[in-house]
Amino acid sequence: MDKKDLEKEFHMTGGAGETSYARNSSLQKKASDEAKHITLETLQQLYKETRPKKSTLGIADLGCSSGPNTLSTIRDMIKAIEEVAHHREIPNQPLPEFSIFLNDLPGNDFNSIFKSLPDFHTELKRDTNTNGDSPSVFISAYPGSFYGRLFPENTIHFIHSSYSLHWLSKVPPGIYDEQGKSINKGCVNICSSSPEAVSKAYYSQFKEDFSIFLRCRSKELVSAGRMVLIILGRDGPDHVDRGNSFFWELLSRSIADLVAQGETEEEKLDSYEMHFYAASAAEIESEVEREGSFELERLEMLEVDKETGNEDDDVSSYGKAVAKTVRAVQETMLAQHFGEEILEKLFDTYGRMVDEELAKEDIRPITFVLVLKRKL
Amino acid sequence: MDKKDLEKEFHMTGGAGETSYARNSSLQKKASDEAKHITLETLQQLYKETRPKKSTLGIADLGCSSGPNTLSTIRDMIKAIEEVAHHREIPNQPLPEFSIFLNDLPGNDFNSIFKSLPDFHTELKRDTNTNGDSPSVFISAYPGSFYGRLFPENTIHFIHSSYSLHWLSKVPPGIYDEQGKSINKGCVNICSSSPEAVSKAYYSQFKEDFSIFLRCRSKELVSAGRMVLIILGRDGPDHVDRGNSFFWELLSRSIADLVAQGETEEEKLDSYEMHFYAASAAEIESEVEREGSFELERLEMLEVDKETGNEDDDVSSYGKAVAKTVRAVQETMLAQHFGEEILEKLFDTYGRMVDEELAKEDIRPITFVLVLKRKL
Repeated sequence: MDKKDLEKEFHMTGGAGETSYARNSSLQKKASDEAKHITLETLQQLYKETRPKKSTLGIADLGCSSGPNTLSTIRDMIKAIEEVAHHREIPNQPLPEFSIFLNDLPGNDFNSIFKSLPDFHTELKRDTNTNGDSPSVFISAYPGSFYGRLFPENTIHFIHSSYSLHWLSKVPPGIYDEQGKSINKGCVNICSSSPEAVSKAYYSQFKEDFSIFLRCRSKELVSAGRMVLIILGRDGPDHVDRGNSFFWELLSRSIADLVAQGETEEEKLDSYEMHFYAASAAEIESEVEREGSFELERLEMLEVDKETGNEDDDVSSYGKAVAKTVRAVQETMLAQHFGEEILEKLFDTYGRMVDEELAKEDIRPITFVLVLKRKL
Repeated sequence: MDKKDLEKEFHMTGGAGETSYARNSSLQKKASDEAKHITLETLQQLYKETRPKKSTLGIADLGCSSGPNTLSTIRDMIKAIEEVAHHREIPNQPLPEFSIFLNDLPGNDFNSIFKSLPDFHTELKRDTNTNGDSPSVFISAYPGSFYGRLFPENTIHFIHSSYSLHWLSKVPPGIYDEQGKSINKGCVNICSSSPEAVSKAYYSQFKEDFSIFLRCRSKELVSAGRMVLIILGRDGPDHVDRGNSFFWELLSRSIADLVAQGETEEEKLDSYEMHFYAASAAEIESEVEREGSFELERLEMLEVDKETGNEDDDVSSYGKAVAKTVRAVQETMLAQHFGEEILEKLFDTYGRMVDEELAKEDIRPITFVLVLKRKL
């Protein structure tokens, strides 16, 4: 699947049904909550520093997806600025107008977000009424790949992106041989049996993509504008570890299980590749430095707390919670490649495998929170 | 139905199915083509005049709906500016970046528009390659009612709105009696049997809405920014004529027909009211003057040419074409009020009635094209 197809086909499961991303993004929310204080602190810092002359503060959420997280993140950010304004930390500074730019690929379910906007505005007005005037908030959607320009020059003050930037622009071309066959047989991403050329190809794609991302954003951000990027990563130089990569290793094994049972063909497993890369801190740092537009102000490592899932869910195990999350994220791609009929069984198997592995030894997926400042 | 419910429920039929707006907006397109030269001329004029210092030209389409008209309008506008730039009518002026702001109510099918964006960009690039560099075009959606603020202050250069502004923000409260019952029995809008209070209430709602519209847009437009508004109207002071109002008169009669056949209840017809108003040129002029932010540069009257419908349609009569158009525009509201099951029969009857009436005497629906300039 090339970049253009990916832009059309890759998206979280839409709507509000049983397997939708809207109802299965509690794991993302959990870790994102941990990253939240960094996000809001950075936003407030930026606001105090730049005191935008134009009365509009531009905030973009890249890879906003479609679910309860989408607008709750926006609400938190607006409140964080109101807090600064109401504490009168900046004298004679009226509350700015907010321009909120939501971004995701064109296949994202923006309609669902839009339908909840009237209620969102009503709540926002109610929440702020006690404090005085309620802010003007203009919410818009800019569909497109963030591995290209999204906004006009010099228009955004703050960029937030949560759990999106580990998705590459495409499956790296380097993992296909001259006949166009994947050399990464039996695996859906970098796994223990992958040839070294596979991790090299993925790393090289990450470098290319991340560098394009930084360059595009540096044009769109105002001087001293900030980005908070929350991405999955890995803890050291090894590409294969008992972290994020292990979840894909188990997805490969679950599909292999279906192959063994004759539910799908081996060839299909061999040709399925995920456009995912978990970078290390060193790789991120070196790419930010090489590209040159940004100063890396912070780089924090977080681990997702496994204790709780979504409270209204009847999820009885961590494995099932992971299975639901991975399904919401990968369902559209898997269904297109393998057919919808395998999904139920696949994710049953997958959830069970995660639980079995956890009983043996911990799995520690890692999240990085990056704070980047556009150089003056 | 109050304003807030309207904002959630009122939209053209989405998707690309048999009764969708996307496939049944050929009448709108037809007249819009006639208005096109005015639109593009005004846009070019604006561009030459304002020579935006910032390199971004902001263009908004209010009530963009979701269909082939949506992006083709945008394409025409971009080409019109390219033409000016390539003819070098402005020395040393590079092609601007385009910021395109699509607007409609939150229930509009924006997903369909977004899914066609990758192809739109590809075509745009191909079309312009012969002329040199292809323009940067940033397309966004700003869902919400245009009877309120949509964009930050001073950000838009040009506003286009085609066949949207005859939809009021709500059914005027003045047509309900103390018990909350409509005094406009048997009619879905102003019709020959309506009491005078009904047309007064509709006119008063139009004045309120149009004035709010002008005030909001005057804040959002840059100085000397332009609006081209294409709206249905009427030819003189009489509210009831053989123009747009007659189409609603026939819709009332078609529903009355179903009542007579026991397919729906009389009470339902009595309580159904459309939030529609066809203003006269004098009413429009007086409201623009009273509000005061805009200069009315042009006010043209157009009549829709009845000769041709959508070429790929198997529409055998003008009545059927009108029925399809009205259905795409009113389907969601009618279905909610009367139930979906009446729609087929209703629009069969309606199409037949239109043809019968046309055999007797012409029906002449009128369109106004307004060009408004924001005062300096």
